[in-house]
Amino acid sequence: MRQAHTREQLWAVLRSWRRAGLSTALVPTMGNLHEGHLALVAAAREQADRVITSIYVNPAQFGEGEDFDRYPRTLETDQRQLEEAACDLLFTPTDQTMYPGGLGDSTRVKAAPSLANILEGANRPGHFDGVVTVVARLFNLVTPDVAVFGEKDYQQLLVIRRLVLDLGYAVRIAAVATVRGPAGLALSSRNRYLDDEQKTAAHQLNVVLQEAASQVADAPTHLPEVERAAQAKLEQAGLRVDYVAVRRARDLAKPSADDPDLRVLAAVWSGATRLIDNRACRPY
Amino acid sequence: MRQAHTREQLWAVLRSWRRAGLSTALVPTMGNLHEGHLALVAAAREQADRVITSIYVNPAQFGEGEDFDRYPRTLETDQRQLEEAACDLLFTPTDQTMYPGGLGDSTRVKAAPSLANILEGANRPGHFDGVVTVVARLFNLVTPDVAVFGEKDYQQLLVIRRLVLDLGYAVRIAAVATVRGPAGLALSSRNRYLDDEQKTAAHQLNVVLQEAASQVADAPTHLPEVERAAQAKLEQAGLRVDYVAVRRARDLAKPSADDPDLRVLAAVWSGATRLIDNRACRPY
Repeated sequence: MRQAHTREQLWAVLRSWRRAGLSTALVPTMGNLHEGHLALVAAAREQADRVITSIYVNPAQFGEGEDFDRYPRTLETDQRQLEEAACDLLFTPTDQTMYPGGLGDSTRVKAAPSLANILEGANRPGHFDGVVTVVARLFNLVTPDVAVFGEKDYQQLLVIRRLVLDLGYAVRIAAVATVRGPAGLALSSRNRYLDDEQKTAAHQLNVVLQEAASQVADAPTHLPEVERAAQAKLEQAGLRVDYVAVRRARDLAKPSADDPDLRVLAAVWSGATRLIDNRACRPY
Repeated sequence: MRQAHTREQLWAVLRSWRRAGLSTALVPTMGNLHEGHLALVAAAREQADRVITSIYVNPAQFGEGEDFDRYPRTLETDQRQLEEAACDLLFTPTDQTMYPGGLGDSTRVKAAPSLANILEGANRPGHFDGVVTVVARLFNLVTPDVAVFGEKDYQQLLVIRRLVLDLGYAVRIAAVATVRGPAGLALSSRNRYLDDEQKTAAHQLNVVLQEAASQVADAPTHLPEVERAAQAKLEQAGLRVDYVAVRRARDLAKPSADDPDLRVLAAVWSGATRLIDNRACRPY
């Protein structure tokens, strides 16, 4: 596996691949890789001749008081895992490589408001602007044919599809299903913050969402009821609920009666750890 | 000269050029071409194997009450001039091609505030955000090796250099000196709005800026005095002044005593027509 920190190192590798006519797939990550990330790398392998994984803990997508400082950084383990997953190039840019003009006063990308200001965006103001800014920059630096994102961050996936549509990137977005632990908990770097009791509570997030998704699939007209019941169950499990919502899968708008493709999404706190998950509304 | 309206038509041409190993230069315009634009095309010819000129009157960079509706659209004459200038491809996107998700709720680019909120930006709120959004989209669609901009829109040139730096575009920005009419008036599509009397007044814009530039070159420490004198002379000529300012050439910050490279910039109204111009501060 090759490695690049600067734009020049990155471009040297990319040039050689381009000359050889090889296609590329990008897997943007913040590191602390788990099986969920490795599923993205595996999907990338199927989509292109060469796989580039980026690791960058992007300050622009963390809010005041969020966990930027304590976000786990485990580069050595990450490298080993990526070698094993047959990743071709690891791009670990410095802050200077990503924000050469500084972050304070710079050109930024603003995500489409209807998507960016609801659910996660309503709870984490500016978060998706930080995401699309770093992803746009990664697209410009790497110019991949494909970029791979996980359905775990479902709203982010839609925000990025809109980035590609609106700004005209020639990048295909591939989505990969959420990878879950034995008890169904979606894998997340933040799970490591949980103690045993908090983890037990966290397991209910998937259970409740799966149940809600089944109910919606059975009787899609009673959405507010489904949402209220799900919220009550999450709270009973000891979780604090930021939101639990059934939305139209393609744009997260509030569904009308005849929308066939729905998704239930939630964000909860288990102790001091914020967790998100989502499920397609079909019988499980 | 080939022509493309849609992304697919554009990409078909670009693919064939790329396969042939040909480099490309983009000249983004809003049409109604004059000698100033043709100088950009000529510069583009020197910079790359193939020249693409885009013509798109971008609604996102016009404010409320500005001249979007009456902005001159002269496609047939433009085409003829571009043929003569040996432009290889004319890209005339539709609104649907440029803003497929609509303009109201879409991913946008926001220009770096320190550059975008002063001078032109202070007088035309949101203008540079509209500019960088459309230019980012053009860069993504065309992926040129070089893009050519005129020094007439000096602040825009700097805003676009920041776009390239901050978002990491692999595009070289080439700047071309302002083309002027016989009396020194900078060529602009908006000059056609002027009647004879207004045009006579407008001629003073260049005269006063050139004089101010010379004064600064001779005695760079008396900048506020130079600005005040220039403003008075413009007003005497019957022009209404939005601003006249001597700034650091590289970032338009207020100069300190030892900044060697200065630029004087102004925006004035002659009747109902807004005109801008600028000059490097050296003896003329």
